[in-house]
Amino acid sequence: MDEKLKLNLETLQKAIESKDKATLLEAFKTTPAIDLAELGNELSPEQLIYLFRAIGPALSADFFTELSQESKEKLIQAMTDKDLVELINSQPADEVTDAIEELPANLASRVMKAADPELRKDLNTLLNYKEDTAGSIMTTEYLEFREDVLVKDAIAEIRKRGRDAETVYTIFVRDQSRRFLGTVDLDDLIFAEPDTPLSAIMNRDVVYCKTSDDQEEVSQMFRRYDLNALAVLNEDNRLVGVITIDDAVDVMAEEGSEDFARMTNMEPSEKPYMSLSTWDNAKRCIPWIVVLLVLGTFTSIIISFFQDKLASLAILAAFIPTLLDTGGNSGGQTTGLMVRGLALKEFGPKQAGKVLFKELKSGLVVGLVVAAFAFCWFMMEQYTGIVVNSDFAGTNIWNGNCWTLEFFDASAKIAALVALSAFIAITLAKIVGSLLPLGAYALHLDPALLAQPLLTTVMDIVSLLVYFSVAMLFFPQLA
Amino acid sequence: MDEKLKLNLETLQKAIESKDKATLLEAFKTTPAIDLAELGNELSPEQLIYLFRAIGPALSADFFTELSQESKEKLIQAMTDKDLVELINSQPADEVTDAIEELPANLASRVMKAADPELRKDLNTLLNYKEDTAGSIMTTEYLEFREDVLVKDAIAEIRKRGRDAETVYTIFVRDQSRRFLGTVDLDDLIFAEPDTPLSAIMNRDVVYCKTSDDQEEVSQMFRRYDLNALAVLNEDNRLVGVITIDDAVDVMAEEGSEDFARMTNMEPSEKPYMSLSTWDNAKRCIPWIVVLLVLGTFTSIIISFFQDKLASLAILAAFIPTLLDTGGNSGGQTTGLMVRGLALKEFGPKQAGKVLFKELKSGLVVGLVVAAFAFCWFMMEQYTGIVVNSDFAGTNIWNGNCWTLEFFDASAKIAALVALSAFIAITLAKIVGSLLPLGAYALHLDPALLAQPLLTTVMDIVSLLVYFSVAMLFFPQLA
Repeated sequence: MDEKLKLNLETLQKAIESKDKATLLEAFKTTPAIDLAELGNELSPEQLIYLFRAIGPALSADFFTELSQESKEKLIQAMTDKDLVELINSQPADEVTDAIEELPANLASRVMKAADPELRKDLNTLLNYKEDTAGSIMTTEYLEFREDVLVKDAIAEIRKRGRDAETVYTIFVRDQSRRFLGTVDLDDLIFAEPDTPLSAIMNRDVVYCKTSDDQEEVSQMFRRYDLNALAVLNEDNRLVGVITIDDAVDVMAEEGSEDFARMTNMEPSEKPYMSLSTWDNAKRCIPWIVVLLVLGTFTSIIISFFQDKLASLAILAAFIPTLLDTGGNSGGQTTGLMVRGLALKEFGPKQAGKVLFKELKSGLVVGLVVAAFAFCWFMMEQYTGIVVNSDFAGTNIWNGNCWTLEFFDASAKIAALVALSAFIAITLAKIVGSLLPLGAYALHLDPALLAQPLLTTVMDIVSLLVYFSVAMLFFPQLA
Repeated sequence: MDEKLKLNLETLQKAIESKDKATLLEAFKTTPAIDLAELGNELSPEQLIYLFRAIGPALSADFFTELSQESKEKLIQAMTDKDLVELINSQPADEVTDAIEELPANLASRVMKAADPELRKDLNTLLNYKEDTAGSIMTTEYLEFREDVLVKDAIAEIRKRGRDAETVYTIFVRDQSRRFLGTVDLDDLIFAEPDTPLSAIMNRDVVYCKTSDDQEEVSQMFRRYDLNALAVLNEDNRLVGVITIDDAVDVMAEEGSEDFARMTNMEPSEKPYMSLSTWDNAKRCIPWIVVLLVLGTFTSIIISFFQDKLASLAILAAFIPTLLDTGGNSGGQTTGLMVRGLALKEFGPKQAGKVLFKELKSGLVVGLVVAAFAFCWFMMEQYTGIVVNSDFAGTNIWNGNCWTLEFFDASAKIAALVALSAFIAITLAKIVGSLLPLGAYALHLDPALLAQPLLTTVMDIVSLLVYFSVAMLFFPQLA
């Protein structure tokens, strides 16, 4: 690709300054709109306006769509009404809707005024669907025919109106009473006998969604059924819009980023990272850090409560971070599996019991393996003197004085205490790590929403309580 | 959808047992292949074989593609050579390749033998591309024409060969010496004058990739450029394959799950969650839990080294988990941002300096806000007696004996110690959290690979060292 993208900001600006229309037209014909738009975001509003006039609506429509929201705003503000009318009416209704939703009120109403009556009707419809529903991402520009329309008549109509539709690869078919029936692929249409009715070549294994369906669920239908376009029906089973694969792909990426953010304790943001200010960026980070710090109070309370025990057996403190990390990491694995599995529809609420049992079994295996290893490792730490029990300072294999029953007993008790606590923490973590996202999903909440922070807090509390309880069993002098 | 999917396992099995071909044919015509395949996975090999014979190759091709790898294996094992020849040659080469890669050697060679010479050639080509490259996910079934071919001749050829191509919506154009030139969209072709050469209606703003390009980068091109199909070129710029949007969507989901797994310290798995055994599942969890437990040794060493300090001021231990969590969470946010941002191409290595500076600034802001809050919160904890400094046991607002300069001094020192350590930890975490994934990316490694575990370990060490150093400054009696 690199050799094709010879166009850079400098050559683009030079062509605009010297009003070199030929170069601009050639650039717009040979460079993808998104690449042009990334350069366009660096131009001044005046340069952009000249560009739009020089290029004409056919080439500039996609270019405008791909500009950043900031550039769109600057441009709409600086444009004359006449230019704005031309620009807005060359755009698909769903793209204009997305832009309007982010515009300040005065600019939004300028855009609405600039829209043709027909476009304005579509905009009003689309603006009324709730965010994150199928209705909010669908387009109203599609091709729909009655089932008894003949192939040749459909083709003639597509030739006439095809340019205005978001996709001509899928054609939608309805019955006399406007109820949605099925789809016809463009290639099936082209290769069919001209006098066949659409009903004879229509796909009947067709999937569809409702306007109020969640956009994430809908985007997963594209992946499951390898769709190019999906019909969106209203409550009367009438086709009111169509979602195309490019919009579904954007939703998949957006929803994936949202889950990713939540799993790392951040507020999701719809703006691209590079356009976030320092404060925007910090604002995404601060809330959960503060909440987790407050929830950390529970660990402080527990440790502070047991501080006499720690003072008399300080080596206990040395294993607390490792133990808490182990529980948190183990639960985090399961939460991650649940959030991703639910998002990709690898399983649903019906399999909750099966999933929970799977995780419990896996937790017992992971817990056993890790605990066995941990016991040996913690023994090694004490015998080599890497971690020192102050009651036995200077006792280690290098000094050769560690082969006493007393040292073995004390070391083994510590190692067993941490290993046993780790086993319990790991197994419980798998259960808590499954229950939190599955529970959220059952309550129609985003499974990722509270899962990770709550998991950390619950596991920290549980691990510490287990640890100190077992410690008092093993070391009666503490009790 | 639910009302359409009346077909369930019971009715399917009944139709097979009673050899009710009509019902089976109707079911296959009105139900999406993936829904049928999920039922098919529950059938016995004998039932599946009957089903394939009853349905015929046209309807069963997609059905086979969507079956689970286990079902494919069982089926191929049980099939006669004759049935296998018919099945395999009805499949696109890229699907057969994917299946072969997972089959045991004896079954893989049966499949290769069953393939027609032409399909076998394609299979051999595809099997030679390295995993996770564009070559490994492309199909060799596409439509390619010379630039001087006329529209009417291209249409005639598509009518003849279109059924064998993976996509007819994008047609690929080459020059006399077989070099790739551009694409023609099916609708442009259909609506063009019959005697126009393809070169006149071809898209020239075309993007493409090379066989050795990473599949993740390639899948992101589909999102960026809203593609339906992408040309794959060899080193001589000749078209050797095509990637279609449905395969790109699968790659996006797979790569997203891989990053998700790595961010939660798991080994990625290509198998769906529900088909993993307990041991498979545990095997994905154990390695990083063990590695992190071993790396946790550093925290044990540091705490054990300072245990005398803890014994004489045990309240210090109470804030260790909160401090370590704060550093780890803060760094985890940044690592998550980097991994996701690099995956979605929101930024690349060229912007590394800018990104690092952005995170540093954000870290300073987050650190300041959190530290200010933390100071107040930790003061509150001590004044209310939630967390008790044993030197001042029983001193709190409920007993009214906390308004002494001595208690204020001791409490403020503790609160300031933790808050200051948190500030340093948060700021450093943003830097470490950026550097690890950006560094991995610069070394052509997966940014998510080691980022999360190393981050936790580095931050735990740094936070503890900062904490104990500042503690000795604030409490000279400890030094």
